[in-house]
Amino acid sequence: MWCVQRRLSEFKGFVFDIDGVLKLGDKPIKGAAEAITFLQHENRKVAILTNNATRSRKGIVDEMKRIGINVGIDEVFGSACGAARFIKHEFGGGKAFVIGERGLREELKAAGIKLLPASKAANADFVVVGLDRTFNYKKLDAALTATMNGAMFIATNEDARLPIEKGAKPGAGCMVAALSTCAKKKPDVVIGKPHPYLLEMAIEAMGLKKSELVMVGDGIETDIAMANAAGVYSVLVLTGNAPRKAELARLPRELKPSHVLNSVSELPSNW
Amino acid sequence: MWCVQRRLSEFKGFVFDIDGVLKLGDKPIKGAAEAITFLQHENRKVAILTNNATRSRKGIVDEMKRIGINVGIDEVFGSACGAARFIKHEFGGGKAFVIGERGLREELKAAGIKLLPASKAANADFVVVGLDRTFNYKKLDAALTATMNGAMFIATNEDARLPIEKGAKPGAGCMVAALSTCAKKKPDVVIGKPHPYLLEMAIEAMGLKKSELVMVGDGIETDIAMANAAGVYSVLVLTGNAPRKAELARLPRELKPSHVLNSVSELPSNW
Repeated sequence: MWCVQRRLSEFKGFVFDIDGVLKLGDKPIKGAAEAITFLQHENRKVAILTNNATRSRKGIVDEMKRIGINVGIDEVFGSACGAARFIKHEFGGGKAFVIGERGLREELKAAGIKLLPASKAANADFVVVGLDRTFNYKKLDAALTATMNGAMFIATNEDARLPIEKGAKPGAGCMVAALSTCAKKKPDVVIGKPHPYLLEMAIEAMGLKKSELVMVGDGIETDIAMANAAGVYSVLVLTGNAPRKAELARLPRELKPSHVLNSVSELPSNW
Repeated sequence: MWCVQRRLSEFKGFVFDIDGVLKLGDKPIKGAAEAITFLQHENRKVAILTNNATRSRKGIVDEMKRIGINVGIDEVFGSACGAARFIKHEFGGGKAFVIGERGLREELKAAGIKLLPASKAANADFVVVGLDRTFNYKKLDAALTATMNGAMFIATNEDARLPIEKGAKPGAGCMVAALSTCAKKKPDVVIGKPHPYLLEMAIEAMGLKKSELVMVGDGIETDIAMANAAGVYSVLVLTGNAPRKAELARLPRELKPSHVLNSVSELPSNW
């Protein structure tokens, strides 16, 4: 697929990663809002797909609005919402102990999943782990008790770091690794990129075929790996985590993007 | 070495693991104190070797005294003391950011190593990580900053779990895994078992040859692996984490103990 470069104007839907693509830290990427508006004027479907589980879909819609991008709640696919949908879809509901922030808790509650405090974690059907900046030993201990009692271990994502303007902060992958170590197993399910669950959710919701869709991201091992694995056309932008151009040539086939742009701002001029 | 079973009375020194060997949770192992007293009456050197970095050597001496075992501070080799000795021996000292409890902090301070608060972690020469039951995201973030600035990453041990009478608690390995994930590297040094650093420290301090020493432990992948790798006669006891006897036969060569006892209490009767 990545051997034959296609015109971007051929596609009916465009799915965007946020961090490093539409914004970096708190700053919008120059020209990102204009590119999204261009696509919407061209009657293309636009969606947002993010591993970030600290915000609910509503939170992400608001975050996008602040940088001039208008998307609806149904056009946002985050790993918090993905985790809630997974539990509801596969098990009909249940009780969860959560390592995670407000967005994740809100999405789970909205899906009718009962959230347990640490003292009741032993009774959980699921342990759901996302980025939690209030993470501590007590939560880890409660999550271990839950998994030892047979709870399913669901990770929203395994991102090692959260990119910020200067440097990096620990990502959800650190919390997942801490629990994996004492639980002596990997997560039973990972919702976020590079796993295809969120992209499949987006494709279904957008009512498109895989061949009609583009995934735009800055992460080789997340966005591009996911798109390639799912058979979706992948566009790499070089505004975030992406490698230098010279390194791109040396990437293995499964990590090579179909298409490279310096920034999403180039999207309209490459139409 | 493990093919030729030797008489235990041939050896001049006996090194003991604590958890699962001399005590289990808060309870002493029956006959353990008598076995140690027997060895001391037979003029054998006795030492304690533990991955536990939450207690200083003084704390371990007191802990042993409570279960009727008299050892001196110089007969205790813990990973807290090992980490302090490693830094002092290899680098002469320096500044450390610590994820760990009082025992680790005390040993480092006693060795003249300056401990930095989280707000100053960026200036650390070393990040020392042990079991920390007050571990939280802020500490992880500070440790990430330190390692990104080039601090050496020292793990006291990588134990996944802390055995307790009923079940288990998360061990130091969870804190190490969390930092490894965001730092994107394994520890530069691991002090505790199965790494041989503590055993080498004990052998040197006891003034014995490797062939004159026995390592007594319950952990196949910690005590026995360490002893075998170091070429030290290994005695497995079945009071703690050890596998069933039937499983022992299937262990690979590097994990097979030289000798098996049901408990340390059998030591005098197997003299």
